[in-house]
Formats: sequence, structure tokens, C-alpha cells
Amino acid sequence: MGAGEFELIARLVERMPEPGPNVRIPSGDDAAVAEHRGPVVITVDALIEGVHFTLPEFPLQAVGRKALGAALSDLAAMGAEAGEAYVVLGIPAGIEEDRLVELADGLAEVAAREGVAVIGGDLNRAPALLASVTAVGAEPEGSPLVARAGARAGDAVIVTGELGGAGAALRLLGLGRPPAEEPPPEARDRLLARQFDPRPRLAAGRALAEAGARAMIDVSDGLAADAGHLAEAGRVRLEIELEALPLDPGVETIAGGEGEARLLAAGGGEDYELLACLPSERLAGAREAVEAAGTRLTEIGTVVDGEGVSIRDAAGRELEIPGFDHLRK
Amino acid sequence: MGAGEFELIARLVERMPEPGPNVRIPSGDDAAVAEHRGPVVITVDALIEGVHFTLPEFPLQAVGRKALGAALSDLAAMGAEAGEAYVVLGIPAGIEEDRLVELADGLAEVAAREGVAVIGGDLNRAPALLASVTAVGAEPEGSPLVARAGARAGDAVIVTGELGGAGAALRLLGLGRPPAEEPPPEARDRLLARQFDPRPRLAAGRALAEAGARAMIDVSDGLAADAGHLAEAGRVRLEIELEALPLDPGVETIAGGEGEARLLAAGGGEDYELLACLPSERLAGAREAVEAAGTRLTEIGTVVDGEGVSIRDAAGRELEIPGFDHLRK
Repeated sequence: MGAGEFELIARLVERMPEPGPNVRIPSGDDAAVAEHRGPVVITVDALIEGVHFTLPEFPLQAVGRKALGAALSDLAAMGAEAGEAYVVLGIPAGIEEDRLVELADGLAEVAAREGVAVIGGDLNRAPALLASVTAVGAEPEGSPLVARAGARAGDAVIVTGELGGAGAALRLLGLGRPPAEEPPPEARDRLLARQFDPRPRLAAGRALAEAGARAMIDVSDGLAADAGHLAEAGRVRLEIELEALPLDPGVETIAGGEGEARLLAAGGGEDYELLACLPSERLAGAREAVEAAGTRLTEIGTVVDGEGVSIRDAAGRELEIPGFDHLRK
Repeated sequence: MGAGEFELIARLVERMPEPGPNVRIPSGDDAAVAEHRGPVVITVDALIEGVHFTLPEFPLQAVGRKALGAALSDLAAMGAEAGEAYVVLGIPAGIEEDRLVELADGLAEVAAREGVAVIGGDLNRAPALLASVTAVGAEPEGSPLVARAGARAGDAVIVTGELGGAGAALRLLGLGRPPAEEPPPEARDRLLARQFDPRPRLAAGRALAEAGARAMIDVSDGLAADAGHLAEAGRVRLEIELEALPLDPGVETIAGGEGEARLLAAGGGEDYELLACLPSERLAGAREAVEAAGTRLTEIGTVVDGEGVSIRDAAGRELEIPGFDHLRK
């Protein structure tokens, strides 16, 4: 970055919450050093301007929040505890230092809320704004990590929270088909938060792991696609009922009817809810645990022998769910 | 990335060397899981087209090699053992799948050579080619990690290998001032390898840690700037003799004389050699250990009380070293 790079880095680093005692060497060295009990869980996730978000529709703070939130969602999908994060920023010529501080504040907000230390990074010029986050977590004491493979015929398919909100929010931002109708202001704000402040389901992920989830993924590519990943990894078939999908308030209004809303819930990505398979006799316990973690659990289908995913409507018709491809559809 | 993304990921992943037994969950899940003895050492480093390399001057394989090599160089600078790597790719519209396989082959070549597993990543469209690598390492048994702080007055300042080659190579590629004179073909190839296949000094880094290095950094921003980082972190002053800097063969030819060559060695970045401070009584042992690790050690200066860096020529004149700022000077 040339002159001023190191001052700018210092300015961004000072916005971050203090690292915990397990961090032996924080930001500012060639590499950071942290102690972990047991194996480390690591994921990388990048947000790129024009691909995953647009300016000025996304406030810079939202870019920071979403970059860290999305990476932590991958840890949630393993049932992991979040530990540290590392951030690569690419900065186009037009963005001023003060605006980068806004982005850092978005990162810091999520880091503080989720108890994550941001202890490393790399600052570069780039032709477009980019924020790539490496999130590091650990296996919680007493509950195993959950991979994508592991679903078995007879398992229940469940999802946390509500769906469709992130896709509907893109429409509110003018980044897709226009809304059929404007939602009430409160619903609007909550939907926009799906894009500007996605919540990684870390507590729910650990609760599901402890409650017996055998396969888990976060809904980032879209429910249908992510169910496909679980089916492929587990060599099973997931049968999902469209009617069962829990909808974010306001999605129906924006999509123009319940049918359209459920299609958005099935195909839209970035809701960052958790999709899991678990033995049906563990369902009641899992529901309680997920509610104790602050969200809800909805049973949306069943695992059977076979392969692939079917999503059927109330009349039993199998639906073709269009793929989700971020902003450029 | 839309349809074809998962097939492409599979195609890239299959180029990578097999992960070792410490990798519990490799590529293909929400996150990867690896076991480490002791603390983890983590760094992130991004290469961005137009900032850190240009096309077509850099073969795609070189982009892959350099992305992983540069990240591993940060681990080398801690005296760490390299373990795993994670790769975020940003892919512009004009780059075909087969060319991405070349990039993957560059990553795989370095991964295999350095014994690193590439076990995670993220593939995205982007306005320019980008490769961001997270490298994870461990503290070697019996030798401590070495941070940037720790130099003390009286320590010797040493550097591994030779300097100036990476900067001279940019001139050969037409990405800087034209060469004063063309070097002989063998020197030319070795200089280009400084850009296309930089070697992280992992073995030398561990050897220096074991031999008593108290402060260490890799030469990525340029010797003068990186010496400044050691001085600042250790609250000491580094006095460096320009005459002592070891030069890559051919740098003098390209720079147009010894004086110019040494300025390039002091100011050019990306040589990925190690710069370290250690007690002078440990120098002989360190030299032997670094040579056993396949490179050489040169004493280039002394640590004194004070702050900052001075680089003096044979006449004792203090020099102003221009900062290194990658391609856009």
C-alpha cells in the first residue's frame, strides 16, 4: 500500500476487541500465534464488490459485518466454537481511509458480539473492494464436530430460524426483481439486516451437535443447493416439503404471494441458517436446545435411501429450484 | 460461481497433494479440521493482479507458486513448521478453466515440495485475478517461535541467501525501469524464479530459531522497511552496511553497477529471505545451521540502542532507501 499503510493498519487494528489470553502473538508480526485445545477448525470466505455486494447499496459497516458473519457461519455449521479471525482487505482507489474505519467497525462489532479476536490481516490495493476472512475455531468440550456427510435414511431434516429474507432484501436494495409490494417498515429493517448483519448460528450449531445432528451445513448457496451438498456427502436423498419452509416476515409481501415466497426461501442463498439431519427421536431435544440458543427449529423433510434432493409442493409436485448466484443472476 | 462451480472446485482440489494424517476433515466441508501439537501459527497473504503481479507477464503457474510461497515465507519468519493452507481465488471473466488448473498446479507444486496440505478454499468471480492464501503452521518441537520484537543492542543483524533478485526480475519483465544490460541466460532464469517461484526459507527459519535468533522477519516489503519493522518492534536501532548486502548474480548487470544493485537489494521487496537479529556469539553456529538448511548467512550489521534504521555506504554516508511498492511505483 506504500506510505501510510502501517499507520492505516494500526488505525484499523485499534478498533478491534482485545484478544483473549489464548492469543500468544496478536496482529503486527509475520504471523499470529494462538493456543487451542484440540483440533482447529478453519474456513475462508471472501466478499467481493460487484459479486457479493454492491456499493453504495451496502454500507461499509455492513460489508465488515457480513464478511465476518459469513465466515463464522461456516464454523457454526460444524458445531464449532469460534476463536480467531484474519482479514484480507482489497481497497480500490476511490475509498477513503475513514470509510475503511467503518468497515473495520463492522468487523469489530461482530467480533465483539461473537467473542472472536481479529488477530491478523493483509491490506492491499485492489480494483474492487474485497474482504476475505479466515475464521478459526475449536471443537467444543463434550460435543463432537459435525461434517456434511453422516445423514442416514430415516433422519429428520431440520432448519433453524427463517428463510428467504436475504433474497428478499436484495430486491429491497434494487438488486434483483423489484418487490411486488413494499413490506411494513419493521419487516423491512429486519429483512435488510439479513444482508447487512447476518447472524452466524454459532450457539444453535453447537446445540444441534450436542443434540445429535449427524450432518450439518449452513444455508449460503440456497436451501436446495445446500441440501444437495448434504445428500451428496452422505450418499442419501433429502425429501423436503416446500410448505414446511419457515419464512421471514415480509418475504411473502415482497415476493408477491406465498408460493413465490417459498420458492425464494428454497432457492435464495445467504440466509446463513443451519440445515441439519438428525435421528427423529432426537428431534424434541434438538428443538429445545435450539430454542435455548435463541432461535427456532423447523422440521422440513426426511432423509431416504437414494440420491439428490426433492422439494415438493402441497400437491406433491416436484419443483425445479433455480440456483442462487449472488448478485449476477 | 453458479453452475459448474462444484465441478471446477473438484478439478482443482484433485491437483493437490494428499493431506497427512493430522487432517481430520479435508476440503469439501463447511470448514476443514486439523490436529496440531501446541499453538497454531497463522498468516494471510494476498496476490492481486495489477498490484502484485501482471498478466500475461506472470504465467498462471507462477501466480499459484508465489501465492503459496509468500504466505509460507511468513511462517518461515516465525521459525514455524508449515502445516496446511487455504486458498481464496477470485477469477475474472476472461480466464478459462484450464488456466485455473495451471494456477492450481503452481499451488500444488509448492505444497508438495514444502509438505503442506491445501485443505480449503473459496472460489469467486472477481474483477481481477486474485489468490489469497491462509497458511497454518506449528511451533517445532524443541525450538521456540521467533517474533519481530526481541532484538537487543549488541546483536548481529543477518540475512539469508541473496537480495535484489526479485526487484531485478521485475525489470526483466518490463515492469519497472528497463535493465541497464541483459544478464546471461542462466542468471536471467534464476532471477525470474525470484518472482515466479520464490522459496520460503522454512528450514533456515527453524535453524535460525534453534540457533538463537531473537527477532526475525521475512524480506517482503524490502530490506530497509523490514529492518524498520524489527527496530520498531524491538525499540532498538539497526545499523546496516550497504556493502555487506549479498547480491543475487545478475542484479549488478541489470541495475547498471554495484552501487545501484545494492540500492535495489536494500529497497526492493519480495526477495523472501530472512532478516534476523541474534547474539554475536551465536553467529558461527547460526551460519552452520543455515548452511545445513541449504542457504547461506551474511552478517550485514549491528543492533544498537536507539530507534530506526541506518544504511550506510562504504564512505559512511547514510542513504535514503526508496520504499518498495510492488508494481505501481
